[in-house]
Amino acid sequence: MKIAVLPGDGIGPEIVDEAVRVLEVLDLRFELEAAPVGGAAYEAAGHPLPESTLQLAQSADAILFGAVGDWKFDKLDRPLRPEQAILGLRKHLGLFANFRPAICYPQLTHASSLKPELVAGLDILIIRELTGDIYFGQPRGRRSAPDGHFPGAEEAYDTMRYSRPEVERIAHVAFQAARKRGGKLTSVDKANVLETFQFWKDIVTEVHAQYPDVKLDHLYVDNAAMQLVKAPKAFDVIVTGNMFGDILSDEAAMLTGSIGMLPSASLNAKNQGLYEPSHGSAPDIAGKGVANPLATILSAAMMLRFSLNQPEAAARIERGVDAVLAAGLRTADIWSEGTTKVGTRAMGDAVVAAI
Amino acid sequence: MKIAVLPGDGIGPEIVDEAVRVLEVLDLRFELEAAPVGGAAYEAAGHPLPESTLQLAQSADAILFGAVGDWKFDKLDRPLRPEQAILGLRKHLGLFANFRPAICYPQLTHASSLKPELVAGLDILIIRELTGDIYFGQPRGRRSAPDGHFPGAEEAYDTMRYSRPEVERIAHVAFQAARKRGGKLTSVDKANVLETFQFWKDIVTEVHAQYPDVKLDHLYVDNAAMQLVKAPKAFDVIVTGNMFGDILSDEAAMLTGSIGMLPSASLNAKNQGLYEPSHGSAPDIAGKGVANPLATILSAAMMLRFSLNQPEAAARIERGVDAVLAAGLRTADIWSEGTTKVGTRAMGDAVVAAI
Ligand SMILES: CC(C)[C@H](C(=O)O)[C@@H](O)C(=O)O
Ligand SMILES: CC(C)[C@H](C(=O)O)[C@@H](O)C(=O)O
Repeated sequence: MKIAVLPGDGIGPEIVDEAVRVLEVLDLRFELEAAPVGGAAYEAAGHPLPESTLQLAQSADAILFGAVGDWKFDKLDRPLRPEQAILGLRKHLGLFANFRPAICYPQLTHASSLKPELVAGLDILIIRELTGDIYFGQPRGRRSAPDGHFPGAEEAYDTMRYSRPEVERIAHVAFQAARKRGGKLTSVDKANVLETFQFWKDIVTEVHAQYPDVKLDHLYVDNAAMQLVKAPKAFDVIVTGNMFGDILSDEAAMLTGSIGMLPSASLNAKNQGLYEPSHGSAPDIAGKGVANPLATILSAAMMLRFSLNQPEAAARIERGVDAVLAAGLRTADIWSEGTTKVGTRAMGDAVVAAI
Repeated sequence: MKIAVLPGDGIGPEIVDEAVRVLEVLDLRFELEAAPVGGAAYEAAGHPLPESTLQLAQSADAILFGAVGDWKFDKLDRPLRPEQAILGLRKHLGLFANFRPAICYPQLTHASSLKPELVAGLDILIIRELTGDIYFGQPRGRRSAPDGHFPGAEEAYDTMRYSRPEVERIAHVAFQAARKRGGKLTSVDKANVLETFQFWKDIVTEVHAQYPDVKLDHLYVDNAAMQLVKAPKAFDVIVTGNMFGDILSDEAAMLTGSIGMLPSASLNAKNQGLYEPSHGSAPDIAGKGVANPLATILSAAMMLRFSLNQPEAAARIERGVDAVLAAGLRTADIWSEGTTKVGTRAMGDAVVAAI
């Protein structure tokens, strides 16, 4: 088993270091190989996703990814900016199924913006399609407006699109996930306005016939954004497209108050996966040893379960994390009165010790 | 002055009735003319936006709109569904500037999902571009995929687009609004992925040169969805495109806990405007006399201020609403222990009496 380790920018290297230490203590046989990605790769090799990094990722069973992005790269042309690395990995590896759990950790209920009774015990899974939609649709660019309100004016445009097999495969992933959980799936669309999402809704409804044990409902994206605020616990599994999923998964993550704790997985049809924390590269605290490594450590656990077929090892990590939380250890982002503040390394040490 | 009154479906007629009664008590000289819209128009005339309704709207100085939509029309072909009426009015009247205040009423702070300290005193203005973006972009439809992951497969697609004058005019509206308020504008885009929104961001930045007194910042839409949950009071005015604005304005409205109270305005270049509550048609409570008419009454106040140049009359309505809230009157949606529950008509009576 080969794991590609791509630390990236900002706090990426620090948090990935701790996840690697946790993986190593498990005494499993796998090979770890690191490579630069994002802004770090641009600085080292002139491109956010160098050919050698992409090849390593393609040859690995799984990718442990830190985070990319830093303000200092804001002025670069879009194709050279750090976030192109993550888009490129998704595209080249066909990582179409993004799993974004939104869980409220019991110890962190108070950290949510929401009233405790609305989030205590919250456990939603958002499944975001990750290789289609307006993210990769062609054509796109700038041109003279062919029609519309100001024909002839300079305009920019993008193409939103989904094909039948793309919607079918993500729908199957979502129904199967819902079946293993609470048996309820909410498909989020904008069928009242968009051709693409009327098609999406029609296909999800068709695929539902194969999963009669799962309860399916449909919400418009604007309504979903509201219902997540109003009653997040009413959801079980949510499936949606790339663009709406980007927005709703971040909204949901922030609602939990546990964003420093939330892992994510992006899988392709062969179960190869990219695993990364749901939070970003936080350049403002990079290198200070204060970042929370738990989302990355939990991403490593997801990796063991989803791509490396090591569910017992995954559970050991998760129990380790539960133990350090129960012992009252907290990084600055999740610290509160009465708990013990620790840095990145000490948190990693504690998880290693707990395992 | 002519006002087109379009009550629509669900609770629309009840709440618009109360707003009309409030307008009438002001003793201003205007002509009110009603017409069917949405599902009601489909039932009466076979189309959600009959030619006669559109003509009335076009000839009026302002439109007082209730709400459209009912589950019973879900099975109709998209062009005949109730919501096409609102899309058609926006398009034909060129109502490009949508004002969506997200205000937390002091009396309703407890009704928010958020902790009171995060929403008390909240007052954001979301300005959503309303006639461009993926809502109206051509081409759109179904076809055989020309390329992508599954060439030849059946696919559906839409076109996102913004032209320079479209972005410029909404940017001017937003900077001017920010100048009259807290002097801070946040432009929300997805410039890291979309050509359309890199263009948007570039143009908003250019227009900023004409408003050096306004502080401008830029947020990606996923981050904006998070920051609204985390610290909504950090915002003053938000400007964004049609699709992102649809999602964020509803998220923000729900955050306030005051959604039954929030008016909205959609204006064109001639200051003709459509005024409607931010909430929907609520078919489940239609005809029961329990709906909250205050968002519609406050929309009538916005109409007087923005399109009919009657700021004093607008303020009278707003003071009337404040007075009934201060007196403890509440419809069911905003009722809480210690306040007096009233129905739609009694709430309208109270505002009329307070004026
Ligand atoms: C960095 C950006 C391109 C990316 C996205 O929009 O998908 C990020 O927001 C995410 O959700 O992983
Ligand atoms: C009904 C629908 C077409 C509409 C929209 O998406 O604009 C609604 O959600 C709104 O925000 O007014």
